Amino acid sequence: MGRNVTEQARAARVAAVQLAASSLEVRNAALRAMIDALTDDQDAILAANRADIEAARAKGTNEQLIDRLALDEKRLDGIRQALTELIAAPDVLGEVLCGRTITAGIRMKQVRVPMGVVGMIYEARPNVTVDAAGIAIKTGNAILLRGGSLARQSNDAIIDALQSALTDVGLSADCLQAVDASNRDSATAMMEAHGLIDVLIPRGGAGLIRSVVENAKVPVIETGTGNCHVYIHAAADADMAENILVNAKCQRPSVCNAAESLLIDRTIAPELLPRLARALVARDVVLAVDSDSYDLVHDALGDTRHLERATDEDWGREYLDLKISVHQVDGVRSAVEHINRYGTKHSEAIVTADWDAAQYFTANVDASAVYVNASTRFTDGGMFGLGAEIGISTQKLHARGPMGLSALTSTKFILEGSGQVRG
Amino acid sequence: MGRNVTEQARAARVAAVQLAASSLEVRNAALRAMIDALTDDQDAILAANRADIEAARAKGTNEQLIDRLALDEKRLDGIRQALTELIAAPDVLGEVLCGRTITAGIRMKQVRVPMGVVGMIYEARPNVTVDAAGIAIKTGNAILLRGGSLARQSNDAIIDALQSALTDVGLSADCLQAVDASNRDSATAMMEAHGLIDVLIPRGGAGLIRSVVENAKVPVIETGTGNCHVYIHAAADADMAENILVNAKCQRPSVCNAAESLLIDRTIAPELLPRLARALVARDVVLAVDSDSYDLVHDALGDTRHLERATDEDWGREYLDLKISVHQVDGVRSAVEHINRYGTKHSEAIVTADWDAAQYFTANVDASAVYVNASTRFTDGGMFGLGAEIGISTQKLHARGPMGLSALTSTKFILEGSGQVRG
Repeated sequence: MGRNVTEQARAARVAAVQLAASSLEVRNAALRAMIDALTDDQDAILAANRADIEAARAKGTNEQLIDRLALDEKRLDGIRQALTELIAAPDVLGEVLCGRTITAGIRMKQVRVPMGVVGMIYEARPNVTVDAAGIAIKTGNAILLRGGSLARQSNDAIIDALQSALTDVGLSADCLQAVDASNRDSATAMMEAHGLIDVLIPRGGAGLIRSVVENAKVPVIETGTGNCHVYIHAAADADMAENILVNAKCQRPSVCNAAESLLIDRTIAPELLPRLARALVARDVVLAVDSDSYDLVHDALGDTRHLERATDEDWGREYLDLKISVHQVDGVRSAVEHINRYGTKHSEAIVTADWDAAQYFTANVDASAVYVNASTRFTDGGMFGLGAEIGISTQKLHARGPMGLSALTSTKFILEGSGQVRG
Repeated sequence: MGRNVTEQARAARVAAVQLAASSLEVRNAALRAMIDALTDDQDAILAANRADIEAARAKGTNEQLIDRLALDEKRLDGIRQALTELIAAPDVLGEVLCGRTITAGIRMKQVRVPMGVVGMIYEARPNVTVDAAGIAIKTGNAILLRGGSLARQSNDAIIDALQSALTDVGLSADCLQAVDASNRDSATAMMEAHGLIDVLIPRGGAGLIRSVVENAKVPVIETGTGNCHVYIHAAADADMAENILVNAKCQRPSVCNAAESLLIDRTIAPELLPRLARALVARDVVLAVDSDSYDLVHDALGDTRHLERATDEDWGREYLDLKISVHQVDGVRSAVEHINRYGTKHSEAIVTADWDAAQYFTANVDASAVYVNASTRFTDGGMFGLGAEIGISTQKLHARGPMGLSALTSTKFILEGSGQVRG
């Protein structure tokens, strides 16, 4: 690399000014060139990826991580397809958000502009490198990418290809830079680059995100962890409750919008909880249940192979696995109180046929996405029709929930006068 | 007080849930009750303020700070008037920002919701206490207010009055709490209250703001410091240039949107700079000029009483006083480069009759407000027609420039289904 993070960020700022002023045509041409470069350099990228995987295996990395790290032709096709969809997306830059004639006849408008320099710290998934780079270029932002050290060779090969694409269309290679992932100092330097990095987005496990949130001196968008609840209200349809619960827990248990906790009204638990427990256990889910539910669930299952007693810690756990906590509540108020206490403000669902309960739930649950009678698994930029997604924000500042292209933009007031001064 | 900051923030979270669900009528009734309480308790508030002022004088506090700290009947009238205007402002909560039917027929809408718990750390201006409290209540947010220690007794008296107004209309007094200002630990605790405070807004001097930005583990909105430039382009009208420059520098030099630096095209400096220098000096402004301008300005003024040689440090200085730096540039590109290097991204103006120069300036200056042919002094929520202002953001995340009521809101996706699961 040669340059340290501060030098890289300064170069990115210079490049960002040029990129911000570029036309949609130039930015789309860059995305097309990126697709071509990923094809031209495919052999080199796959070779680098094999070297990363070999090194990761030698370190005893588990196969789940290896799978996230691995690239093949099919995955590269998917990555290129995402870039193709980005080209088709409308430009968010230049959008006039509001405008009026203000005091003394000054014409004011608020327009959407790029954020400037975006920093991203993530783990060993090389597809994120391309996704984030593509979204940054589309939205006119320079980006500093610090991937996981396990994916270092893959990321370097990918970024080499993408940089050559940028220079092919006359943009600076500094728009898109790999930050040295071989030591923690580079991540710290990104967190401390106040005035140089406009927003830092951590994507990955809870530990990474917490570390960035606690240590950053630059603005951060917190993403990801999801302790999502499915609350079965007394007026729920039993079939719908089972479908939604099983889908939210089992369809893809390792992702942030999967359910981690089942809440059920005490009045219907004797009738419905045995059925729900059997449906989950049929899909190999382990239940960590409160003391009120233990005997009931035990009787339903007949054994304890998929049964545990929940401790208070279970209410806050994000298992990301075939496991769910189970807690009985006394109506919608009690459910909302539990969710607002233990949830991570990601995705929360109620199953009910009762109008008032649904209204109370959506009004009072404090989360980025609140569902009535649908699975939490829909929380996703693509599903919401927002286009490419840079992550799912679990904070309330700037962006909340799935973040589309506009999450990487800011605004600028432009004021046009004819000599006005303030009296 | 009794409670520590963490306990206060927890109580605020509980209160915030009730407040968020309250109707506009209740929130406006609270604002009316606040106006009444400030009238009923006026004697107690003014007595507390006199005690603060006496203590501040005994400490040798300068009279400029004493003036900011001081309340009288007229200032309290102004404070009550601001609350009256807040009552008239439309509700921002519940606004539907977008909505559509997404996959599988789920109806999605994104609605504006309160931020939750807002923290504010500011200096010794008791009017900020009421302004911030009013804006928070109007937008459905609980707020923790940590004013300057010099204003402690004033703030306690004000917050006592405001809390009684809240309970009068059935809201919790915990919506609005004074944080102990007698030690730094309370500020640190606010900065570290991750998960309890949704956004922290520092308002005050550069030192306070830097300290919050560097130390906070909660989301921050950076406000305030303004190193604003007036750039006189070669095609500027001379009268307009003088008017705008003098207004931007002199109309109220102590505020963040006042000009701190004059840039002038080298080609017109020999003709125009002497006139501009004389106009500024006639208003007692001191000029810190670059070496190219020194002899020119010296000849124009005839002496050095208002003349200094600028050092590189001057380009980044926010004087907040009758002083301005002066630098010659080589056209609009050179001016923009200087501004983007030394500015604080607050308010920047060009004076020109040239279309291309104006377009280049507004497109490429990286600041919250960019002016063509008008004074930087207009950057202000009221002037922009945004209503009550909570501060001026100089960051790009979440809010940029003057922040109106919606800056204290977030959004929530609400999804209504009929049993949909993800396939």
